[in-house]
Amino acid sequence: MNLDKRNRVEVCFTPEEYSNFKNEFEIVVVIDVLRATSAICSALSHGVKAIIPVRTLEEALEYKSKGFIVAAERKGKIVEGFDIGNSPFSYMNNPTLFNKEVVLTTTNGTKALDIAKDADFVVVGSLLNLDFLNKWLSSQKKNVLCLCSGWQNKFNLEDTICAGAIMNFLINTGEFTSIEDSSIAAKYLYLSAKDNYLGYLKSSSHRRRLINLKLNKDIKYCLTPNQTNVIPILKNGKIIKL
Amino acid sequence: MNLDKRNRVEVCFTPEEYSNFKNEFEIVVVIDVLRATSAICSALSHGVKAIIPVRTLEEALEYKSKGFIVAAERKGKIVEGFDIGNSPFSYMNNPTLFNKEVVLTTTNGTKALDIAKDADFVVVGSLLNLDFLNKWLSSQKKNVLCLCSGWQNKFNLEDTICAGAIMNFLINTGEFTSIEDSSIAAKYLYLSAKDNYLGYLKSSSHRRRLINLKLNKDIKYCLTPNQTNVIPILKNGKIIKL
Repeated sequence: MNLDKRNRVEVCFTPEEYSNFKNEFEIVVVIDVLRATSAICSALSHGVKAIIPVRTLEEALEYKSKGFIVAAERKGKIVEGFDIGNSPFSYMNNPTLFNKEVVLTTTNGTKALDIAKDADFVVVGSLLNLDFLNKWLSSQKKNVLCLCSGWQNKFNLEDTICAGAIMNFLINTGEFTSIEDSSIAAKYLYLSAKDNYLGYLKSSSHRRRLINLKLNKDIKYCLTPNQTNVIPILKNGKIIKL
Repeated sequence: MNLDKRNRVEVCFTPEEYSNFKNEFEIVVVIDVLRATSAICSALSHGVKAIIPVRTLEEALEYKSKGFIVAAERKGKIVEGFDIGNSPFSYMNNPTLFNKEVVLTTTNGTKALDIAKDADFVVVGSLLNLDFLNKWLSSQKKNVLCLCSGWQNKFNLEDTICAGAIMNFLINTGEFTSIEDSSIAAKYLYLSAKDNYLGYLKSSSHRRRLINLKLNKDIKYCLTPNQTNVIPILKNGKIIKL
């Protein structure tokens, strides 16, 4: 496909659109800034051994019946009957989770992970591990797709801005190219957001949703870049540290 | 749905995503800046009586066999066997088209028109009729969805910017509200593009595609706002002047 030797980096706005991009990219970066992929970065950097992402509550309950620790979130709230959701803080300094495998199902993020699972490499991106991830991606010499989780099949702003940050970094190395308008738009949105993520996203729909749920502390944490040097990667159905 | 009395204006990036928005909006503005909806505005303001949009080449050929004037475009080119495509210039000062009905099928735009056809009002938007359309939309007191045609199921920049211009105008009247991140993103993209559409879109994928087809004159025309005061509206399968 490429006329030059550069690798491609592109942005896909929602899991539904993944079929338009599939099979052209060796690395898929799954992004769900508020909050699944932020929580996964936080968990693995605070001693959780692995995250097992599952798509449905039924699968989550099955794991629970087998004695697994299970986290479940829908529409921003912990699902009744489960102990944790996808707040990054649930995974910090939590001795019960140390060196354990935690099963996780969320509204959007685990769906995106499931859709991308057949790619050669599926890694987890968020603002929390942005710089570290960017450096790793640029060293791989592979085609990269940033897959935003969106919100219930729709475009969301925070994932797109994170994807735009990755796209912008890789393009600026001179070793990547991009041909999709979605990637150009993500870059433009990132460039206008980068000096003040919180302010830029104050009107975004999902941030409003989480503020209504009194999750301001989570939002602030998830929108503060580079708090951890971890690259979570999906291997045989489990997300572990690279 | 609305907690206040304002109407909603939202932006849908592609026809594929229309099902996420359907039925909530009385007015759908179909946008295909390069070039279907620009051509339709141009045609109706230069004396063409009606445009009959059809989705497939088979339908177009059927009309042709019945003696209709038929325009057909695929991937930026006039389809073999047809006389015109979707260049706005084809419809100007063309005596053979004066007061005639012209059947039109294009890669993206007529697909979007077809998908939206069950809305109460389907109107045609482009940069060419932007201000005139905005004033009419703001006077209607109805919920407005800007439906971008995209490019082969994918997001495109030029339609999104046009949608963002409409969204921004209506929000600024104080009588509209918006809750979707896609609408916020479209507004941001419009605001950074509005002083230089041509420059901003120089890297967009479809513009590159059309430049390769030597359609620079078309691009310039389609990206120059407010060249006509016409609101094309779909009535009983035909697009006519409102």
